[in-house]
Amino acid sequence: MSGSELKTSDVTQAERDALREAIRRALDAHRVSGRTGIVAAILREDAVVVTAENQVDQETDPTRHAEMVALSQATAQLGRKDLSDCTLVSTLQPCEMCLAAMRFAGIQRVIFAATQDKVAGKYFVFPRLGIEDFKAAGDRFSTVGGVMEPDVLHLYAEGSE
Amino acid sequence: MSGSELKTSDVTQAERDALREAIRRALDAHRVSGRTGIVAAILREDAVVVTAENQVDQETDPTRHAEMVALSQATAQLGRKDLSDCTLVSTLQPCEMCLAAMRFAGIQRVIFAATQDKVAGKYFVFPRLGIEDFKAAGDRFSTVGGVMEPDVLHLYAEGSE
Repeated sequence: MSGSELKTSDVTQAERDALREAIRRALDAHRVSGRTGIVAAILREDAVVVTAENQVDQETDPTRHAEMVALSQATAQLGRKDLSDCTLVSTLQPCEMCLAAMRFAGIQRVIFAATQDKVAGKYFVFPRLGIEDFKAAGDRFSTVGGVMEPDVLHLYAEGSE
Repeated sequence: MSGSELKTSDVTQAERDALREAIRRALDAHRVSGRTGIVAAILREDAVVVTAENQVDQETDPTRHAEMVALSQATAQLGRKDLSDCTLVSTLQPCEMCLAAMRFAGIQRVIFAATQDKVAGKYFVFPRLGIEDFKAAGDRFSTVGGVMEPDVLHLYAEGSE
């Protein structure tokens, strides 16, 4: 960990509120509709720009992770490809696809609940690379995981295929 | 390189034809409309399922790389998330986002023209990880790059930001 690494105590109240709301939506999606419940949000200047749920099964499209849907909607809404002034919040650690997409959008700050080492393997496709490997492999971005993790871990425990 | 690594001579005639057509479309997009020209195709049983051009600038959406559009369209067309019987073909080496997306779709075979080490840096976000690192980091997939590379390199030479 470098000295610039985020800590849980660095998470702003707005980011914490956005994550809490994302978790509420994820738990609702799971309880009401039987879906896994993965929800991401994008904030700018401490205001939520978009909140989006994973659409993979509903759209039969493996690219429609919650973070990807949120990135698409946020860039559409702001009318620009660059989201370097934004924070990505997610109920689950962003996978390799979402990390790369977020970096193409310039996002440098990521807050998430459930961490890779505590969830089913199916949520990642390059498991022998961890988030620290990605942080070391390109321009800097900061992450903090495990925030409110106990609230969502049960959603992502199953299915190791 | 392992013994199972693809070689240029392993590329089928159908894959070669699909790449040639992708290159033709990329060159057209560049010449006629001034776009960069990045085109991907997905084949199944030696038939092209979809061919798609990068939509990032047209849709102001950094997630809409050619390969991502192709994956979305192919899964929609085939009505299933799994494309493990398909080949991905692209005029440019798939970036980290597209590699991960392709692996979530189960694709194990990738053919491309321009290779990372010969194009502008902006097409990749984790440059200190190469495609061999990704191949070593999860379930197996095979790639062959540099096929018809001289036909497209000029499209991707500029813009190192």
